[in-house]
Amino acid sequence: MISPAVERLIQTLQYLPGVGAKSAQRMAFHLLADHRDQGMKLAEALQNTLTRVRQCANCRIFTENEYCDICNDPKRDHSKLCIVQNTMDVVAFEHTSQFKGLYFVLHGVLSPIDGITANHLGLNDLVEYVSGKQFEEAIIATYATAEGEATAHYIAELLKQYQTQCTRLAYGIPHGGEFEYLNANTLSQALSGRSTI
Amino acid sequence: MISPAVERLIQTLQYLPGVGAKSAQRMAFHLLADHRDQGMKLAEALQNTLTRVRQCANCRIFTENEYCDICNDPKRDHSKLCIVQNTMDVVAFEHTSQFKGLYFVLHGVLSPIDGITANHLGLNDLVEYVSGKQFEEAIIATYATAEGEATAHYIAELLKQYQTQCTRLAYGIPHGGEFEYLNANTLSQALSGRSTI
Repeated sequence: MISPAVERLIQTLQYLPGVGAKSAQRMAFHLLADHRDQGMKLAEALQNTLTRVRQCANCRIFTENEYCDICNDPKRDHSKLCIVQNTMDVVAFEHTSQFKGLYFVLHGVLSPIDGITANHLGLNDLVEYVSGKQFEEAIIATYATAEGEATAHYIAELLKQYQTQCTRLAYGIPHGGEFEYLNANTLSQALSGRSTI
Repeated sequence: MISPAVERLIQTLQYLPGVGAKSAQRMAFHLLADHRDQGMKLAEALQNTLTRVRQCANCRIFTENEYCDICNDPKRDHSKLCIVQNTMDVVAFEHTSQFKGLYFVLHGVLSPIDGITANHLGLNDLVEYVSGKQFEEAIIATYATAEGEATAHYIAELLKQYQTQCTRLAYGIPHGGEFEYLNANTLSQALSGRSTI
């Protein structure tokens, strides 16, 4: 009973992460019933953004210009680099207001099973960037997963030849976390990393 | 740190129902990072569907033609009409394979507080449709909420003058439902509607 054009819209809405068949249906009917203007604005924004926005030539953050606002900002600490898995992580770090350095976005982690290699993560660009900039410190802020750890060690090896100190974030109990909900790995890492008070 | 074009995309993605700021961010970065083709296809589908698809001249189901596939199908039972709140409800009824009649989609319920009047629900069109078609039965399948009930009674009044019997769906315990999770209204309706076995 669903017309081919509506069916196509429902299909393409499922390209969005986290959107299944049911939500896509609800979205399509919502736009068709009473929000066609908003749907057209979304279409324009998609076309405009996806054609104009590229990656910063230094750090691979999304930007409309050659370099992003962070790389262009002389007030940032240009001696520190934070290497993250994706752009959401940059947003998260910026929210802390604690890190004032520069970033490099991998847009992924090494995962040979999924065919994601050093090439996909722009590691050649990273090496070139680090060798030119002479950072004092590179915080390799990949996630605490098997792939994240492997990627971190791979990058640390790559950057060894430069005068850059590579660091990892602290492992332990998240702020406000109740122990019963933590997995055993987290708690055991918190134990081995304990400090005197 | 988010560029204006990306910000605009994140904003417009939130026009979709059920999408908040965080999901919109994730969607935008997902499309930008590695799925620009899919994003462009979504944009095209939005433009194509939202400009070409209209409401069936009889029943207000979304279609690219003047009449929808259901209204055009001579095998359907043209003596029965099911009046529903929205297109998702048509999909749900079609899934049961039990109702073989025609539909009328209100695209809402009467809600004076939100300014939704008989006009918005196309009730004039409904009266015209029913007077022309002489249905034997009209199942008024609005939800069991205050607005849904009020709308059902309003429609039943409207259709009184025609030879059409108006019915409501059965109230009671949903299939497989455990009683502890049912609200008191449902259980009390199930009690008053009990039948001998």
